[in-house]
This record gives sequence, C-alpha cells and structure tokens, in this order.
Amino acid sequence: MSLSPEQRAEIEAQRATIASTRRTVANGMEAQLYTAHEVLDHGFVRVIDYMGDDAAICQAARVSYGKGTRSVSNDEGLIRYLMRHWHSTPFEMCEVKFHVKLPVFVARQWIRHRTANVNEYSARYSILDREFYIPAPDALAAQSTVNNQGRGALLEGEEAARVLEVLKGDAARCYDNYEAMLSQDGQKGLARELARMNLPANIYTQWYWKVDLHNLFHFLRLRADMHAQYEIRVYAETICRVVADWVPLAYKAFEDYRLGGVALSATGMACIRRMVNGETVTQENSGMSKGEWREFEALLNG
Amino acid sequence: MSLSPEQRAEIEAQRATIASTRRTVANGMEAQLYTAHEVLDHGFVRVIDYMGDDAAICQAARVSYGKGTRSVSNDEGLIRYLMRHWHSTPFEMCEVKFHVKLPVFVARQWIRHRTANVNEYSARYSILDREFYIPAPDALAAQSTVNNQGRGALLEGEEAARVLEVLKGDAARCYDNYEAMLSQDGQKGLARELARMNLPANIYTQWYWKVDLHNLFHFLRLRADMHAQYEIRVYAETICRVVADWVPLAYKAFEDYRLGGVALSATGMACIRRMVNGETVTQENSGMSKGEWREFEALLNG
Amino acid sequence: MSLSPEQRAEIEAQRATIASTRRTVANGMEAQLYTAHEVLDHGFVRVIDYMGDDAAICQAARVSYGKGTRSVSNDEGLIRYLMRHWHSTPFEMCEVKFHVKLPVFVARQWIRHRTANVNEYSARYSILDREFYIPAPDALAAQSTVNNQGRGALLEGEEAARVLEVLKGDAARCYDNYEAMLSQDGQKGLARELARMNLPANIYTQWYWKVDLHNLFHFLRLRADMHAQYEIRVYAETICRVVADWVPLAYKAFEDYRLGGVALSATGMACIRRMVNGETVTQENSGMSKGEWREFEALLNG
Amino acid sequence: MSLSPEQRAEIEAQRATIASTRRTVANGMEAQLYTAHEVLDHGFVRVIDYMGDDAAICQAARVSYGKGTRSVSNDEGLIRYLMRHWHSTPFEMCEVKFHVKLPVFVARQWIRHRTANVNEYSARYSILDREFYIPAPDALAAQSTVNNQGRGALLEGEEAARVLEVLKGDAARCYDNYEAMLSQDGQKGLARELARMNLPANIYTQWYWKVDLHNLFHFLRLRADMHAQYEIRVYAETICRVVADWVPLAYKAFEDYRLGGVALSATGMACIRRMVNGETVTQENSGMSKGEWREFEALLNG
Repeated sequence: MSLSPEQRAEIEAQRATIASTRRTVANGMEAQLYTAHEVLDHGFVRVIDYMGDDAAICQAARVSYGKGTRSVSNDEGLIRYLMRHWHSTPFEMCEVKFHVKLPVFVARQWIRHRTANVNEYSARYSILDREFYIPAPDALAAQSTVNNQGRGALLEGEEAARVLEVLKGDAARCYDNYEAMLSQDGQKGLARELARMNLPANIYTQWYWKVDLHNLFHFLRLRADMHAQYEIRVYAETICRVVADWVPLAYKAFEDYRLGGVALSATGMACIRRMVNGETVTQENSGMSKGEWREFEALLNG
Repeated sequence: MSLSPEQRAEIEAQRATIASTRRTVANGMEAQLYTAHEVLDHGFVRVIDYMGDDAAICQAARVSYGKGTRSVSNDEGLIRYLMRHWHSTPFEMCEVKFHVKLPVFVARQWIRHRTANVNEYSARYSILDREFYIPAPDALAAQSTVNNQGRGALLEGEEAARVLEVLKGDAARCYDNYEAMLSQDGQKGLARELARMNLPANIYTQWYWKVDLHNLFHFLRLRADMHAQYEIRVYAETICRVVADWVPLAYKAFEDYRLGGVALSATGMACIRRMVNGETVTQENSGMSKGEWREFEALLNG
Repeated sequence: MSLSPEQRAEIEAQRATIASTRRTVANGMEAQLYTAHEVLDHGFVRVIDYMGDDAAICQAARVSYGKGTRSVSNDEGLIRYLMRHWHSTPFEMCEVKFHVKLPVFVARQWIRHRTANVNEYSARYSILDREFYIPAPDALAAQSTVNNQGRGALLEGEEAARVLEVLKGDAARCYDNYEAMLSQDGQKGLARELARMNLPANIYTQWYWKVDLHNLFHFLRLRADMHAQYEIRVYAETICRVVADWVPLAYKAFEDYRLGGVALSATGMACIRRMVNGETVTQENSGMSKGEWREFEALLNG
Repeated sequence: MSLSPEQRAEIEAQRATIASTRRTVANGMEAQLYTAHEVLDHGFVRVIDYMGDDAAICQAARVSYGKGTRSVSNDEGLIRYLMRHWHSTPFEMCEVKFHVKLPVFVARQWIRHRTANVNEYSARYSILDREFYIPAPDALAAQSTVNNQGRGALLEGEEAARVLEVLKGDAARCYDNYEAMLSQDGQKGLARELARMNLPANIYTQWYWKVDLHNLFHFLRLRADMHAQYEIRVYAETICRVVADWVPLAYKAFEDYRLGGVALSATGMACIRRMVNGETVTQENSGMSKGEWREFEALLNG
C-alpha cells in the first residue's frame, strides 16, 4: 500500500478544487487528475496537469495542412492518417505532467528517454524514506536460459524464500546504516550526498515527469512492450490506461499502428508477397538469417 | 490591421466558452487566452493554451529539493533563488502554446530555437494569402556603418519612398505571378510546392508554437534584446507582456537576472573589484582588448 | 554548374592535406571528404568531417550489452539486430558534418529536423549571391489531381515556357532591386537585414549541418521517401550514397529495415495472416477504411 | 588503481595504431586519445574520438557571419567574441566521445544533462564488477550546517573509521548476496535484471558519452563549479584539462567568460555603478534580500 492517510487526504483536497477555464478541457482526463494509481508495492502514477485533447491534435494538423486536410473529414480519420504517415508534430501539441513514485533501478531506465522534463526528489538535499521494492512471488523470476536480457521461470519454494530474505535483509540493514551515518549522538553525521550511496537500487524515489504526447507514445511503445522489464512495463501499462481516457482517438490509433503494429524489412515484405501468392517460403530461400527468420515466423503466427 | 471580422468573431466565440477544470488556473493568463495582439502590419500573437503557473514552479522545486527548500519560505524568494542559481528544471514544468502570424524571414530566425514544438501552415498543401510585411517609416533603416549586423539612421524622403515602392511592387508582382502559375484557364497549373518558391521572404506565414517556460525565457533573452532584429523583437516584447500576466513572479525574476542582468568575465569582474576599491582602471591596464573594453564601459555606464 | 574554379581549387587543396591520427578512420569516407556532389542547378553536398564507422557502432553496443552481445558474433549481424530492435543509441555514436548549398524553400523543410547542429550563412551580416533554383524541364510539374501535397504530370510546351519565364524574370528583378536597395549612389542604402526580405524562396543559401547517424537515418527515411518533395529528395539521395560509403553495414541494414521496410498496423498484420492462410480478404472484411485499404494494397503489390 | 594490466595493454595497442586522414587534426587531442585519467578510487575518463578544433569553430562562424566576421581578424578574438555574445552554434560544430567509469550515484547526476548521447553498461544483460567507491579520508565530510546541499567539516577519528567500516561492509555484503542470488548450486538463480537491485549506489558503472562542445561547456560550468558535489566535480575537472588540450582558445574563453565569469542581476549591476561612483551601498539600500546581498558581497570579495 503506497499511500499514507495524509496523502489520500491531500489528493482528495486537490480533486475537490474546481475552477473555471477558457482552455480546452478533456473530460476523461479531468476524472483522472491527481488520482494515484498504485504500481508495484509502494509506487504510484498520477496526473498533475495536462494540455490539449484529440481536437487539439486535429487543430494543429489543420493549421499545417490547411485546406489539404478537408478531404479527411472526421477527426478519427485524420488522427489515424497522421499516425500512419509518421506526422509527429500535431501529437507534440499535447502535454502531460505526471507525479511518479518508482524504484531507482526503474528510474535509471526511464530517464534514458531524454525528450522530457524531470524534477526528481534529491537525496543531496533531503533524506529518502525507508521504502524498497520487494518483488511479489509472481515477479520473482530466474534468468532466461534463451535470452540474455530476459526472465525465465519463477523461483519457487526454498529458493524464492531465500532470495526474498536476502533482498529484505540487505535493504533493511543498508537503510539502518544510512540513518546511523546521517546522524549520531555526539557525532557530526555524514553529509546526505555521501550517505545516500549506501542505499541499494530498489529504494523508491519520486519525480515530476512532463512530456509531450508524441514522445510519450515513443516511451510507451518501448516500455509497454512485452520485452521491456516487468517493473517498468507496469508503469507504462498504467500510463496507457490514463492516455486512453485523455485522448481516446489518438490512443486507439497508437494501439493499432504502434503498440500492436509491426515493422517489416524489405526482405520480410518480399517474403509475405510470395506467401500471399501461394509460394512456400522457408528460412533457406527467405534471404534472412536464422535469427531473423525466427522473429519473422513469430510475427506471422501472431 | 491583421484580423478579419471573421477572425474576430471566432476569437470572441473561443473566449466565451468556459468550462470547469481541476487543473491549476493562472487568472492573468485566462484573461489573455485567444486574444490576438497585433504585431507589425499583418502579424499577431495569441495564447491558445497553457499549463502551470508560479505555484507549479515552486511545487516542482520543492519535490526536487524537499525539506531543503523550507528555508526559502515564500514563493517569490524561491523563484528568485532558482533563477539566480540556474536551476532550470522547475521552469520547464510550465508550458505555453501560441498562435503566431509572422513574415517568413522572421520565422526563419525564430525556428533556430530548436527546443519547441511547431506546426506551420504548409505552402505545399495550401495557398498562401496575399499579405506582405512592408516596414513602417520608423522601421525603414539604413545599414549601420559601425555594426555589420545592425541598423543605422532611418531612410528619409525620396530614398524611403523609392524603397517602399520597390518592396510593394515586387511583392505584388510576385504574388500575381504565384497565382497565375497555380491556375490558368485551359492549362494545368504549377504544383503548389513549386509555385511558392516565387514568393519573397516578407510574405506572412503562421504557426502554432509550443514551448516550456525555461526555453521561452531563453528565446526572450536573445530576441527581446536590443541587438535582436527589430522585426522579431516586437514579437518577443509582445510575448514578454503575456508572460508577465501568466507567471508574474517568474517574469520579474527573469527581468532582473536575465533580461536586465549582465554576464561579466573573470577579467571584467577583477576590474570592477579594483574600481570599487578606488583604483583607476583603463583599457591598457584592464587585460581586455579594445572591443571588450568598449562593451565593458557601456555596461558600467548602463 | 554550381562550383566556381576558385571553389574547385580550394577543395583540391583541402583534399591534398593529409595528416596522421589515432582515431578510427573510415576509408570510404576519407575518399568522400570535401568532394562536392552537385545537386539541382546550383546546389551541392559535401562532407566536411566525420566521427566513427561501423566498428564504432558495434563497440558502443558491446559496452551497453556486454557479454550479452557475444551471441551475435559478427558485426553485420549485430548491426542488423540493433536496427531491427530499434536500439538507437549505438548509431548515435557516429557523427557527420556536411556543407550544403540549397534553395531557401528546401532549407525551410530541412530545418524542421531539430536534432542537428546548423550554422547558416546569414543575410543579416552578408549579401547573398545571385543564384536561384529554376526547375529543369523534368521537374516542372503540375499540381497532383489526387494528392493535395504532390505533383502530377509535367508541364509542357507553352505553359512550361511561360512558367519558366515568370520564375526567371521575378528572380532577376527581385535580385536587381535587392542590390539597388542595398547601395545607391548618394544615398544611404537599406540595411541588409531588411533588404533580404525582397528575395524569393528559390534563392540559394548554404550551411554547415552536423548530425549523428541515428538522426541522419531518421531524416533520410522521411526525405529520401518517394512522397518527399523532389527538391529535398535529391539532397537526401545524395547523402544516402555518401553514408553507404561511410558505414556500409549500417546503411545496408537501414535500407532493408527502414528505407525499404514497411510499418503495418495490427489490423493490417491480421489481414496478412488470414491471406497467408489462404483466406480472401477484401476492404469490406478487412476492418480498414477505404483509404487505408488502398495504401495496404499498394504495399502488398510492392 | 582503476586499470587492470589487460586494460593498460589494450590502451597501448589502441594508441599505437596510427592512420592517415584528410580530416582536421587537433594535435593536443591526439596526445590524449585513449589515455585513461584516473578519477576517484576506481574511475577513469578517456577520450575515444573527437571531431573538430579551434579552427573548425571559426570556420563555422565565418560561414554564418560571412564577410561580417572579417573585422575580427584573428581566431582568438573571434572565439572570444562568440563566447561573450552567447553564439552557441559554432561551438556545436565540435564533438567528443569519452569512455567514463563512475559510481552510479554520480552517473545519476550526470545523465540529467540530456543533450548528449550515452551507451551505458547494462546490468540487465551483464554482471557488474565488484568495485565500489569508498571516499578517501579527505572526502569524508559531514553535512554542512549552513547549506542544505553541501558538506561541512571532515569526519575524523572514530567517527570516520566507523563510517568507512559501514560503507565497506554493506558494499561487500550486498555484492556477495548479488552473486549468490545470481547463481546457486542446484538452483535456478535470480534474473540479472532483478538481482542488480540489491547493489548500492556507490557501485561503479561505465559508459560511452558523446557530446558537442557547446553542451560540454554547459556541463562543465555546472559540474566544475565549487558548489557541485565533489565526486562529480573531479570528473569535470579532469575533462576540463582534456578540453584545454583539444581546443585551447575556446577553453581559455570559456574559463574567462563562464567558469570564472559572473552573472549579475540588473539590481546588482546598479549597485556596482553606485559603488564605482564612490557611493556606499549596504544591504538596506541595495534593493536586495539578505540572501542575495550575501552572495553579492561574496562576488565582490572574489
């Protein structure tokens, strides 16, 4: 349970404050505002602010393409056209700001997406809370035996118990020592910017993260993908649900063309043309390596 | 006069639509929303949307610096501290979207600021309107005789008249020919993407331009500067007034530290220390070149 | 003919200067260095500097993925893997700097790619040369009747002659007037930053353009595409040939996965699965709109 | 000692390979290439590649400003002019790629500079080495009593010993457990992407980091500053020495205008004008708050 009673009260107060505005309002997103969606054991995602909606995407596109866009008469068709043809600038006209609480090792992956604005809680200035990510039993996986970057079967029984014991024990001991180094009776106490280096990567941090819709879609395509690490994927999936409420037409197009879409090489497309024409194509006559062919077959089988 | 009666009616309609929101509302900016500020002879700037206010800057800073910021108790002091110490990320938490109509040669300078989102009217898709920037008499300046990039005295009398004649005549002729190339009785008409290349750089274009407050301040520092070209400076000055209504505390800090602030070299600062101590410093004993000394003296004389 | 004898002599001198370096050297690119490839009637592209090669891409990938990449034993396989799985950062480790001379209306499209460094010839500081793009007969096309942003049939006979006459005439007159406004016997002359606004968009400008390989590939995918405007496509195609000499393995992967590759929606991929299984799929039972189906059929027919 | 004999041999081999190039060569940087500068207890910085030199900065500036720059006849004067007037694009024309080994908590600060390219060693794919940053006695500081983000006096005697004991003990135990979780006789072993979360923030990571000179100067101004955390400052200072060898004129200008330069507010500059004119200015009549006045006095006293 990630939220304290104080936090819940603060969120309720934020949600209760209503004002008038001349701006575009996305009703689905108003319902989301400030609500914290719990993720992992102590994390959350919540919307702090947003700008724009599906209509703002179309409005920007119509500025660019002027009378040229009249042929695509409705908003949904226009948004699908923009997504299909990689017109990214109209999607950049929407912006969203999240408050996210997440383990440090997840934050380290997340920050690699550079086209966003971030204000992270600073352990130079402040003392981190005693909150660590400890995987639930269904996330405690062994190394994959076929994939260098993935997970295999779940750990079970004694092995699972032993691993959980280690993670909990080291987190507790490191945090105890962090506190003890910071402040000691009759002693000076180590600077916060130094003491924090004793904390393991499953400690939680938090940040405000602001991004435009085009770059958010790029993030979601990579991080809501089944090959992404589980611990970041659950954040991405939570954000997907928020975006579906915010810009339903754009999200639907994103789902069809990006999240569920596939990129085929020229070689792969040539194989498909032969297959549709009834030809039997095998790895040997495909022009692909064994690895590529394996991935290609997986795509064809869905 | 840049706005047609239709445009004025549309703006009134946009301004009349009021909705409820849970988001942060900046009242000064609500008053600005959609209103078109006229710039040059046919241009304008108007706010289409915004996110955040002074309080949002402080909120983001307090997430970053946590309890560390309690010592700066009030918002104004905190914002000044952030500006003085080049903490840029809290200012990135505010975002604004403008609709701008501007001459192409101004747009070409403007677009050099890369950290913004743009949707420009496309002359590949659509036909440009017959609107050209013709300088007012008080903007019709000769080349500076001391500055390679600047302006000198105003043109007067016959010379001014002759130059205006040329600008108007060429604009009209080029536009007539643009129209004639696009569409001709019994002929095919040149593609729009080709015909547009006959149009001079004082024709007006328009775009949606979205930027965060930190990058907007950077733009304004360079373009509201007295060395900026007059035709872009008037846009920057208009935007300055809008920003002052939106985030009054941040704008005031920006004015003091950036717009009115000065950057001194180590050499310049050493001279100032000597001068404050009563020493007479000249170019010869300053350690500066003649050009640097000239600029330094100008700073000292304000 | 875009190069003067002086420019040719300068290029020869640059090419003749050879030095020793400890850096990675790409031999195919050394042969390209400084050579100007002519584009359109007065434009060119030439390589001024570069950093990295195919091996540098692999080296960076192996830093990231460590022992994990040992399973992909050879460089070509690794580069294809990186391209196929959208691993962009290793490609960012290569950098290239071009000197490009191009018409202003092409420059305006080009600059929309923001993740690059640009130094453009400034008409505030300097006087532009009398060089305008005038389309060759095989580029003088009518507006497409089916595509709002494209070209249709070539203009012919009298119509072509008339259009060329207009373009040449307006360019010449505008440039004459530009010169006359700048400097006049016994008069002051208009400031360069103002006089330039009389010049049409087919005048040539030039710039240094520096970009990393990942962002260059993104530029080339969009601008070497058959839907790109012809006048920018010829630049992109010239750069494609340069890149093929620089990083042959990466270019080949780019050609297969991006330039020649296709992106299919989830809906489109589902149709392909049905077709491969022998089912007859039509627009009506495809789940696509008529426009999408038309594009999908075009992909299938290659 | 951060480098193994194998690494030293590899570096020697890289340095021994010399090739011919037509590119610009910076001799001071050639001497630097591949050499590892040791930083902290196990870290290092070394140059892997570079593009451009002082002359390349001037060449780009002269493309932009054309004949306008002839008045600044020599390269040093031109570079100082560009730096003084915030002309950033010519500096963007130089690029450098470093290989850096650094503690994770330093990497987390470093990565906040978004305008760079990074390939980091991935603990999802590979196993991290047993190397932790343990502060030297002269870096083991207490929390500052006057500054929320800084350090105060050094820890001494028993307290220092106790803190070092804790840091070493926790690092060793966490790493032992990391190894034990990864692989166990007769058990599956935890996935690498999960096991790594047990490692504290003083473990070393490494990356390739590529950046242009303008953005590198921005990084160095903030991180070579005396207010930066010591553990990142030593990296910045090492890079400063490398850059001084690479582009000596640009580095000297950077040192004078940025690193040693000061930014004064309009209010501060007005005070200086009064002081130079012999007036006595105090906090009370300065228009500054107490905090600002304290910082202003510190500037004046150098």
